Amino acid sequence: MAQKKTYCDCLNTVKPVRDALDVINGKWKLPIIISVGVGNDRFTDIQESIPGITPKVLAKELKDLEQHKLIKRTVLDEYPVKISYTLEKYANTLTPIIYSLKDWGINHKKKVTEQ
Amino acid sequence: MAQKKTYCDCLNTVKPVRDALDVINGKWKLPIIISVGVGNDRFTDIQESIPGITPKVLAKELKDLEQHKLIKRTVLDEYPVKISYTLEKYANTLTPIIYSLKDWGINHKKKVTEQ
Repeated sequence: MAQKKTYCDCLNTVKPVRDALDVINGKWKLPIIISVGVGNDRFTDIQESIPGITPKVLAKELKDLEQHKLIKRTVLDEYPVKISYTLEKYANTLTPIIYSLKDWGINHKKKVTEQ
Repeated sequence: MAQKKTYCDCLNTVKPVRDALDVINGKWKLPIIISVGVGNDRFTDIQESIPGITPKVLAKELKDLEQHKLIKRTVLDEYPVKISYTLEKYANTLTPIIYSLKDWGINHKKKVTEQ
């Protein structure tokens, strides 16, 4: 009997998923988004809230997140000039996804460790 | 003026998200889940539906996905013995997340390329 073979546009379906994952992947992007999201708006505060991140890496990741339109960098006209980081409204579109992943991750850990 | 510093349990929030991402990350896991999901239940059919995957890698990834309780491997009592792969019901819990990521990825591509 011939095997039925189902055409699968797998790689095309996966492409946009991959685009999304590229944004939230990596060690630091999510911690930074969360840190800025809870109110840390200064470079030093963000850095101190994320154990292990170096200023160089944080600067690079912030720039990346700015390019992804997730984080807004504002130069405050004060003396001395201050830089403030806040989440773009657009970043809220990521929130439900992050929480779905979080819930799934918690549940999955139980699932794979249960007998 | 002292800077307000917001405590952020960033790394703890990120941990289960990371656990979830570990499952769907990598080049092949999602294509395999999608391929099996659309009905490819034989090793060769899955392999042919995913351009570029080698039998060795597919075998390893299928074993991983079995351990994650996402894919079920069944030995069919026929002559010759056949192996069938199907999605576990549990894999459905991933579906809404994958589609959210897909929609977000499509939208994000527009967002970052628009002026």
